[in-house]
Amino acid sequence: MADIPDNLRGRLPDAAFREVAPRYLEEPRGRWHGSARAVLAPATAEETALIVTACAGAGVPIVPYAGGTGLVGGQIAALDPAPVLLSVERMTGVMKVDPDGHTMTVAAGAILEDIHAAAAGHGLIFPLTLASQGSARIGGLLATNAGGVNVIRYGNARDLCLGVEAVMADGTILHGLKGLRKDNTGYDLRHLLIGSEGTLGIITGAVLRLFPKPESEAAAFMAVADPEDALKLLRLAQARVGEGLSAFELIGRAGLDFMDETGTAYRDPFSDRPDWICLVDLGVSGGRDAADALEGLFAEAWKAGLVTDGVISQSVGQRADFWALRERIPEANRKIGSVSSHDISVPVAALPEFIARAPAEIAAVGDFRINCFGHMGDGNLHYNVFPRPGRRPADHEDARGPIKRAVHDLVDSLGGSVSAEHGIGRLKVADLERYGDPAKLAAMRAIKSALDPANILNPGAVLRS
Amino acid sequence: MADIPDNLRGRLPDAAFREVAPRYLEEPRGRWHGSARAVLAPATAEETALIVTACAGAGVPIVPYAGGTGLVGGQIAALDPAPVLLSVERMTGVMKVDPDGHTMTVAAGAILEDIHAAAAGHGLIFPLTLASQGSARIGGLLATNAGGVNVIRYGNARDLCLGVEAVMADGTILHGLKGLRKDNTGYDLRHLLIGSEGTLGIITGAVLRLFPKPESEAAAFMAVADPEDALKLLRLAQARVGEGLSAFELIGRAGLDFMDETGTAYRDPFSDRPDWICLVDLGVSGGRDAADALEGLFAEAWKAGLVTDGVISQSVGQRADFWALRERIPEANRKIGSVSSHDISVPVAALPEFIARAPAEIAAVGDFRINCFGHMGDGNLHYNVFPRPGRRPADHEDARGPIKRAVHDLVDSLGGSVSAEHGIGRLKVADLERYGDPAKLAAMRAIKSALDPANILNPGAVLRS
Repeated sequence: MADIPDNLRGRLPDAAFREVAPRYLEEPRGRWHGSARAVLAPATAEETALIVTACAGAGVPIVPYAGGTGLVGGQIAALDPAPVLLSVERMTGVMKVDPDGHTMTVAAGAILEDIHAAAAGHGLIFPLTLASQGSARIGGLLATNAGGVNVIRYGNARDLCLGVEAVMADGTILHGLKGLRKDNTGYDLRHLLIGSEGTLGIITGAVLRLFPKPESEAAAFMAVADPEDALKLLRLAQARVGEGLSAFELIGRAGLDFMDETGTAYRDPFSDRPDWICLVDLGVSGGRDAADALEGLFAEAWKAGLVTDGVISQSVGQRADFWALRERIPEANRKIGSVSSHDISVPVAALPEFIARAPAEIAAVGDFRINCFGHMGDGNLHYNVFPRPGRRPADHEDARGPIKRAVHDLVDSLGGSVSAEHGIGRLKVADLERYGDPAKLAAMRAIKSALDPANILNPGAVLRS
Repeated sequence: MADIPDNLRGRLPDAAFREVAPRYLEEPRGRWHGSARAVLAPATAEETALIVTACAGAGVPIVPYAGGTGLVGGQIAALDPAPVLLSVERMTGVMKVDPDGHTMTVAAGAILEDIHAAAAGHGLIFPLTLASQGSARIGGLLATNAGGVNVIRYGNARDLCLGVEAVMADGTILHGLKGLRKDNTGYDLRHLLIGSEGTLGIITGAVLRLFPKPESEAAAFMAVADPEDALKLLRLAQARVGEGLSAFELIGRAGLDFMDETGTAYRDPFSDRPDWICLVDLGVSGGRDAADALEGLFAEAWKAGLVTDGVISQSVGQRADFWALRERIPEANRKIGSVSSHDISVPVAALPEFIARAPAEIAAVGDFRINCFGHMGDGNLHYNVFPRPGRRPADHEDARGPIKRAVHDLVDSLGGSVSAEHGIGRLKVADLERYGDPAKLAAMRAIKSALDPANILNPGAVLRS
């Protein structure tokens, strides 16, 4: 194993030198394996700058590592020369809440659940919510512009960040932790770094937006006949409760069928299983009751013939049960094992067309099952393809490419995105080249060369080295 | 007057060649005067690309021109060689509303008021709202990341845009009009171009976010003793009505005194003039009544001793009157004539401290009057300094520099911004160099060189040529 740049010895505390544990070189889906000459965990932007400067000088690439929960291989690479893996795990010092300013300043290593707890301590919320929040760290969540279930109301990670501190490829520190609501002083480097997956700079800290916690929250499962009616229900909900709509998830019946098939525990909301379920979550204030608002929405939707059945949470616990069902769908998917999974988006109004047309495209490749669920309010579906019962993903290795191509071509023809919220990482570099706008790709390459001329920062992620 | 690049003759329709009218070479405050060898008005991105390519080949700089309402000289320049002024006024063809997708696709020349009307035709709103909306064009509003009065609820212009089409310095067209809610495919060039003031690319089209129109809207003037109580009132309003709070403006008594002094017509809401007034605007749905919500807010604030007087709009017309008062403050300011005006922001919680400390800093320069008003919910003040009665701005030419410096130094010491919403243009290039983060400036220069190596696009704006 190659050594770390000599001039780092003695300039960082012992705690910054971590064992190269296997977990750093693996990723959730087990499709990628990385290499690392060392795992270095700086505690501050200054220590990060030391490492970046030393690595740049020695021509050693750096792979930034946060929670390790990424699904596209952005946090993992088998490079030659072997990279330094820069972990933000020790950057957990700062967690300063400004309740008057509705902001929180955090270091890159802060875990999302800890951020939620710190906000809750002041009666506020940080609304970024996703399945991996127990281990995902804010540095990675911002580097990948994470999405999740509350985007329809609060936006993506980038919309929840007022500023970032980052170390650039030349080792200089970008100081951007002012936390202003309005600041038109030059190019918005915050938004350039957010979503760049560690290829333009390493985010070491951020100022996050906090929001008042809605006084009343409730969720409902509403059964609809098809995605067209789900879209009509979404629009009705937006017209009636406006920003009070916190989430609008679509769940195909395969989501529940798969949980039965895999013995995944859940509370079945319907005696008579519908083909499509919408999970509608409201958070309201001003003396209103969220469950009442859902009752009213359901009644109006029923009158309009948009819903065939429904159940509304009557307690905090029941609302949690509803969400537990939604969050366990990926668990059942993993047990069955997908042939190909897709994190795609299309214009919201085009979702029904995509869902109607995609099965034929996949059937043309072979005989598979589909589990379609996701964030309908954002036009974002997790559209996953599985073997028939009794067959294994390994039986269809050769089908993965054609399936992915068929799904992505359809998405592209509908003006959609082949990576809605997971990013490009290393998994989708070729997809970006295939489907990306040439002028955008040219500009991205020019910016990468300008800010990281030696290609030290996460080489091979987003853009081909 | 120098000629336009020869190879453009005959390649653009006659309508694209405009007369070099004086209005193109002036700006609202009359402090800048521009030059132009020609005013070219392309109707499409393709015609824009023709012009950019020809100018780049001939080494002729381009100054993009939209509504001409900018206050920092970004749209005007006396350059040598004389620039081509590229006006977006003919880019008004597209205005496509997608009511299901809650989006509108527009060309860069669309005037903000026309965009409002097009959205209203579908019962939706485009919430960007500012004084110049009758002439401001979306291309310029995005290039400068315009702000306005509804930022507290809906964000700045960048937050209201899902994608842009733009012509880059090499004449290639960036196609970014997908209008997706989630799209994590590479660097976010949309946000890089928005706010770059035409120095990295020329925005020719955009996809805008639309929102349901709140079912009930109302406004209130609430008198407070000081900015500290105004901040407490802001937080109370946010806790009670959450996102229903559409605007929260602060108005110092000088705002009304100046209207009296200049004979500017308005309806005085208070018989006994308070030192500080908050203009609170709500828009709510779900069967609620905005005026009732304001009543409840006022009652609670009164109990808490936060407000000393108040009046709530009881009709659409009265709400319009309230806003007319707010919008006419700048008119009175212009009649009196400011020595120095400042578009600044600080962290919201630091606003009271800024307002408390700034007068002493200005008094140290000389004997002046202050009119302090602005978007308190965003921490953004228009903090303007005026001569005493009987004196003229011209009597204080030498004081402008020291006043600006004193105000900006205080803003900087409080972690604020010297350009909250107007941008840098040519007026604040030196301020950006003085107060900007060195790493940010270095990255900005590297990006500018990478995307516009010949410095053709709006040279001298944002960054010194």
